[in-house]
Amino acid sequence: MTQLYNKVALIGLGLIAGSMALAMRRAGLAGEIVGHARSAETRATALDIGLVDAVFETAAEAVEGADLVVLCVPVGVMGTVAQEIAPHLAQGATVSDVGSVKKAIIDAVQPHMPDHVHFIPAHPLAGTEHSGPRAGFADLFQNRWCLFTPLPETDRASIERLQKLWSAMGANVEEMDAAHHDLVLAVTSHTPHLIAYTMVGVADDLQRVANKEVIDFSAAGFRDFTRIAASDPTMWRDVFLNNKEATLEILGRFTEELFDLQRAIRRGDGEQLFDHFTRTRAIRRSIIDAGQDTAAPDFGRGPKEGD
Amino acid sequence: MTQLYNKVALIGLGLIAGSMALAMRRAGLAGEIVGHARSAETRATALDIGLVDAVFETAAEAVEGADLVVLCVPVGVMGTVAQEIAPHLAQGATVSDVGSVKKAIIDAVQPHMPDHVHFIPAHPLAGTEHSGPRAGFADLFQNRWCLFTPLPETDRASIERLQKLWSAMGANVEEMDAAHHDLVLAVTSHTPHLIAYTMVGVADDLQRVANKEVIDFSAAGFRDFTRIAASDPTMWRDVFLNNKEATLEILGRFTEELFDLQRAIRRGDGEQLFDHFTRTRAIRRSIIDAGQDTAAPDFGRGPKEGD
Repeated sequence: MTQLYNKVALIGLGLIAGSMALAMRRAGLAGEIVGHARSAETRATALDIGLVDAVFETAAEAVEGADLVVLCVPVGVMGTVAQEIAPHLAQGATVSDVGSVKKAIIDAVQPHMPDHVHFIPAHPLAGTEHSGPRAGFADLFQNRWCLFTPLPETDRASIERLQKLWSAMGANVEEMDAAHHDLVLAVTSHTPHLIAYTMVGVADDLQRVANKEVIDFSAAGFRDFTRIAASDPTMWRDVFLNNKEATLEILGRFTEELFDLQRAIRRGDGEQLFDHFTRTRAIRRSIIDAGQDTAAPDFGRGPKEGD
Repeated sequence: MTQLYNKVALIGLGLIAGSMALAMRRAGLAGEIVGHARSAETRATALDIGLVDAVFETAAEAVEGADLVVLCVPVGVMGTVAQEIAPHLAQGATVSDVGSVKKAIIDAVQPHMPDHVHFIPAHPLAGTEHSGPRAGFADLFQNRWCLFTPLPETDRASIERLQKLWSAMGANVEEMDAAHHDLVLAVTSHTPHLIAYTMVGVADDLQRVANKEVIDFSAAGFRDFTRIAASDPTMWRDVFLNNKEATLEILGRFTEELFDLQRAIRRGDGEQLFDHFTRTRAIRRSIIDAGQDTAAPDFGRGPKEGD
């Protein structure tokens, strides 16, 4: 594979940055990869396990001379980091990010960007419930989507070069408007996460059911919620604070539907329940056909974990 | 392994009955296994793939001479089936079931049971999103729980013999009161299923987000909901109609919590969100430690399905 950037600076060294580093290295996409993380321990780990060639105590130092800078920090600090690195960005550098919301990040980052750089917001739809530099793996983006929400005035050649990078890391690339991105993600990710966090909280609270029972008997459905509700708290706090409108809109729709099904249960309307459950079954098949999940029963999860 | 029953009759030949047949066969737990299903096609399949030694057009014929009869039909028809088989049950036979609710099944089945049989309600907490006789596999119950909700007057020796069968099929066995079972399952299974069914319905409905987008971008969280919402519609309709009170109670708690988090989003209360998300993370670790799920990121789901 051809090298696409001479020096890539990753700001933030968690699951996504770590996976990008490993994927770029494996495919020889970057001449040099450097990084910055606020925590000294994270920086040491990233060096130690060979994610990056060098680490820096400040983001400003890390971006010096980089032709690609990727902000891999929580959504809530994107603006501060952008402001800090702005005076140190190289002529013609591309600045991108991997944040889960796009409108708020554009509003926070764009005003700080000097004219001589290309700011290209992007969002890889990939991740696991684990976090930190050790959680990364080179295959994370394989056959996953990376959504680009470029501003209309941005240089096309720079956008295409960054899209080539994501394709070379295994992702499928698509462009859309930032507001539409935020609505789509409210449906496919943000609201499902809030619901899972809520249900796990309810179970944890319930005095009449022992915690041990919730844990032992979780295989009946609940454990899939706990996986989602084990995701990084800082990341998710920032997602909800920064995609407030779309999340609240979809939550409103969700509550409306829930009350409708709840009423069907109360009234004993079996037909309505059956019709609803039949309709939702079809969408699963489409997701498997689209290659976004496995058809193996129960995700192919082994029945004898730990044996 | 010692043979525990001479003749086992499985009424209903879906995922659970098929898995029981394969697990009993593998461990030599039953002399003969026969079955009944309403559909001629299901009966033919069950014979064809060797789940059972013989099939019968009626449940009444199937139970003749059986020392164990297991009702593996949807909750809503348990009573009718019990009534039909009652006059044909052998002296001293054990009659059990695998239904997901227990109070309603006891109410529906117990009145039909003659004095010369032992009715022992049970519920294996195992399953996948697939259904039908071909969906069964011998390992389904391995390290999963089978909850018994026996009536106080039931013969202990018969209960223990049936518990031996479940243990020999790989399950962990526990006894509890039927009402408590229904509450615990409302938390760990029934409410999570209703929530998943609801969210998938919302996504499917949403005019402003194309169906293709929901499917392509599902890997961001939503796809785990679609797996749950792909479960058998008849089974789940009956679960909600027959565990109405406990499900509505837990749904009430859920809605209360959801509104609280929704309000935190609206007010921008990051601290409340962060605290909640931190608390729910801990419960995941307990489930993995209890051997009820895998610690592999994303369930160890391969990144390149279909490649």
